[in-house]
Amino acid sequence: MYGIKLCRGSSVSLVKQLYSALINLIRQGELKGQERLPSTRELAKELAVSRNTVNEAYQLLVTEGYIYSKAGAGYIVHKKCAAEEAPHVCFAEKERNYHEIEYNFSLGIPDIHAFPFLMWNSYQKKTLFQFKKEDFAYGDPQGYLSLRQEIAKWLFRSRGLQVHEEDVFITTGTTQAINFCLELLKPLQQTFIIEDPCYYPVAHSLQRLNFLYQSIRVDEEGINVPAIKDYQHAICGCYVTPSHQFPKGSVLSDGRRAKLVKLAEERDFYILEDDYDGEFRYNQTALTPLYSLCPERVIYMGTFSKTLFPALRIGFILLPKKFHAQWKTLRSVYDRQNAIHDQITLSFFMQERKIDVYIKKMNKVYAKKLQILLDSLKKYFPQNLKFLGVNAGLHIALQVTGAKFDEKFYEKCFENKIALSFYPCKFYQKEFITEQNERDILYLGYGALEETQMGSAVKRLASLL
Amino acid sequence: MYGIKLCRGSSVSLVKQLYSALINLIRQGELKGQERLPSTRELAKELAVSRNTVNEAYQLLVTEGYIYSKAGAGYIVHKKCAAEEAPHVCFAEKERNYHEIEYNFSLGIPDIHAFPFLMWNSYQKKTLFQFKKEDFAYGDPQGYLSLRQEIAKWLFRSRGLQVHEEDVFITTGTTQAINFCLELLKPLQQTFIIEDPCYYPVAHSLQRLNFLYQSIRVDEEGINVPAIKDYQHAICGCYVTPSHQFPKGSVLSDGRRAKLVKLAEERDFYILEDDYDGEFRYNQTALTPLYSLCPERVIYMGTFSKTLFPALRIGFILLPKKFHAQWKTLRSVYDRQNAIHDQITLSFFMQERKIDVYIKKMNKVYAKKLQILLDSLKKYFPQNLKFLGVNAGLHIALQVTGAKFDEKFYEKCFENKIALSFYPCKFYQKEFITEQNERDILYLGYGALEETQMGSAVKRLASLL
Repeated sequence: MYGIKLCRGSSVSLVKQLYSALINLIRQGELKGQERLPSTRELAKELAVSRNTVNEAYQLLVTEGYIYSKAGAGYIVHKKCAAEEAPHVCFAEKERNYHEIEYNFSLGIPDIHAFPFLMWNSYQKKTLFQFKKEDFAYGDPQGYLSLRQEIAKWLFRSRGLQVHEEDVFITTGTTQAINFCLELLKPLQQTFIIEDPCYYPVAHSLQRLNFLYQSIRVDEEGINVPAIKDYQHAICGCYVTPSHQFPKGSVLSDGRRAKLVKLAEERDFYILEDDYDGEFRYNQTALTPLYSLCPERVIYMGTFSKTLFPALRIGFILLPKKFHAQWKTLRSVYDRQNAIHDQITLSFFMQERKIDVYIKKMNKVYAKKLQILLDSLKKYFPQNLKFLGVNAGLHIALQVTGAKFDEKFYEKCFENKIALSFYPCKFYQKEFITEQNERDILYLGYGALEETQMGSAVKRLASLL
Repeated sequence: MYGIKLCRGSSVSLVKQLYSALINLIRQGELKGQERLPSTRELAKELAVSRNTVNEAYQLLVTEGYIYSKAGAGYIVHKKCAAEEAPHVCFAEKERNYHEIEYNFSLGIPDIHAFPFLMWNSYQKKTLFQFKKEDFAYGDPQGYLSLRQEIAKWLFRSRGLQVHEEDVFITTGTTQAINFCLELLKPLQQTFIIEDPCYYPVAHSLQRLNFLYQSIRVDEEGINVPAIKDYQHAICGCYVTPSHQFPKGSVLSDGRRAKLVKLAEERDFYILEDDYDGEFRYNQTALTPLYSLCPERVIYMGTFSKTLFPALRIGFILLPKKFHAQWKTLRSVYDRQNAIHDQITLSFFMQERKIDVYIKKMNKVYAKKLQILLDSLKKYFPQNLKFLGVNAGLHIALQVTGAKFDEKFYEKCFENKIALSFYPCKFYQKEFITEQNERDILYLGYGALEETQMGSAVKRLASLL
């Protein structure tokens, strides 16, 4: 019925599979607004599953506002949720006055106080005196050549990646890279796999582009690769954050890395490897990027927003040759290219290996902040705590036994001048997060907090529980 | 049949209306690959038009590869053209070696040789010494406040526009602005009106976003507003280049300006006013932007790519309040914000009114180049010439009686080290340009050419005819 195929013995439950399939049908307009769904009995028989399975899937859809039940008529697709007006992920936070915030635990904010702005300025001056007028006309949508060369060299120094400048494409950051990659994959009209929970702009873009997608749970080894294998439909791509899963913090295990790449080759899909937080690692050696295992199947995405500073708006991707021409076309009609001045400055900064020095320094800074954070949490939280994602990146996931971090809690924190990123309770509505028990996890970014603030910040946070 | 409605007495021919309606059905997937179209007799009867009308529309679709005829089966939709694989506007030029070009008549390239780079550098230095560290963290997706304030003041000085900084949104240029606006309008699922011929990135985005659209011919008074009025279906938006139509160069007449805005109010649609080339005007006074007539119906788009230099990647829009929140969300998930450094520098440059001085200077430079171009054309072209679009902008349209500028001609020019933008013959394939007789028009950009080159460039061009 409706071409729904369920896979028995998959690590994704039948309820979840059915639920996702129905959402996709609604989103694709196959099930239209006001359309009546088959009765639970009818669908259960057709799919050879228990009525309970169908009932549970329907209940989830009711809870999330996709369908409603009507006495005597069964379950009906909500008009507002049908394809005409697909629901959008609501990720926009309330307009808040961040100036009043004392302690900022938001995710993804680097510490820019230690950035060598004076030195950066000297390279900007160098740019001013060394630029060629031609560089200020329309340039290559792929990006400034010297910068691409420096990125290739740096990736070899820092990651052991052997890449050629012709495979390096400059972006304005990872969000742009994700959007363009999805546009490249969209014509395939196949399912896109995301992590559950996942980085919210990916979810937003998938909904906006009307993609078929399937979220796959993340555990302590990262995304559940066997569950991807179990997925029966054709897959066009898979977005992963293997270095430090966003937001849960796990690191994709070596075994799963190899399996994921093998699966991509066998099933003919592309991996979007977001090397989020990959530059900041504590107590662990550098991980081999998936890209190095199969450069023609993996799109590697990097950014200087966290390693240098966010308002630089420069990132890059390593792109399989198959997509080179399409990417350039897309970039040309979207925003043409990055601005030139900062590209030149960054290439000078990298050429003299200042980036290596700075990242090394920041590794120490963040490692120390992390240690103070963990110590403070142990000191001020009386509860049983579990720390996730403490080996890399700029945030941790804190699991507090018995706690329930609901919207009220986040509000209370804000009233007490503590900012938290609203993961997962606000961003991960609907199908992007499946399990209710995630509510005992708090995500704490420590990039923006100063060492001296950490103790009192945690103390206040604990008092609000 | 298929919900096609034709409008009699419209300035758009019935053939063109039918042809556009069928393309939209194919693009929307209502007519699928391998589907048989009704016979010409059947459709003619249904729509109460002559069989000839249907036949002509079908022939156009055959020529353009949307459908094919099969003996005994009538007309069939091409599989490759159905919604699954919508045809894309082919605008990407061959990979050419522009280094060998001697004379560059490409469109949309400003002269950057006169740009006061030394002065610009002094403002960049000022930025280096005056920035605040907070500015280098993630900032407002709307753009840097001081820059928005300066743009508002400058629009008042240069255009008499009274705008508030809160309605000014910084972009990376007009292509980004167009893409975002289309995304904002897409949920309305109504027809978008474009100029015929039109600026190719708009066409590309419409196809990529699977929009319903209708192109309306441009004449010497700009887009044919009465023809928009005749269009029977619901309209969500209309893209216009009123200051200097791209590429035909006409200026939207005062009468049509008022009518277009009135129509937008009556029919509840939004005008995307691309003030392309609006800063460079010769022999004519400043025109009132459509925006000033109805700020809640018009999205005004400006860029500094032509007025300052292309690789700056800063533009702006004036946005009706209705879209403010949606725009910020979209920008946040797309590329977050513009880079900060150039935004600060530009705000200093504008604050001291250096932009006013530079634009005034460039008006003289371009006016002189234009005069030399026109004189050279009269001198070297023996044919009967008609000049279009000579009152503004950086290019003209040259109509040469009896000439046929086909792809071969463009190739020949390139072999002889002359670069021309391929308008309309290459970019405006399929439904974006309707009339064959456009082939006697050559579009000549004079921004990139130096005064001293103009004569010999035109002489060589004439010799290739």
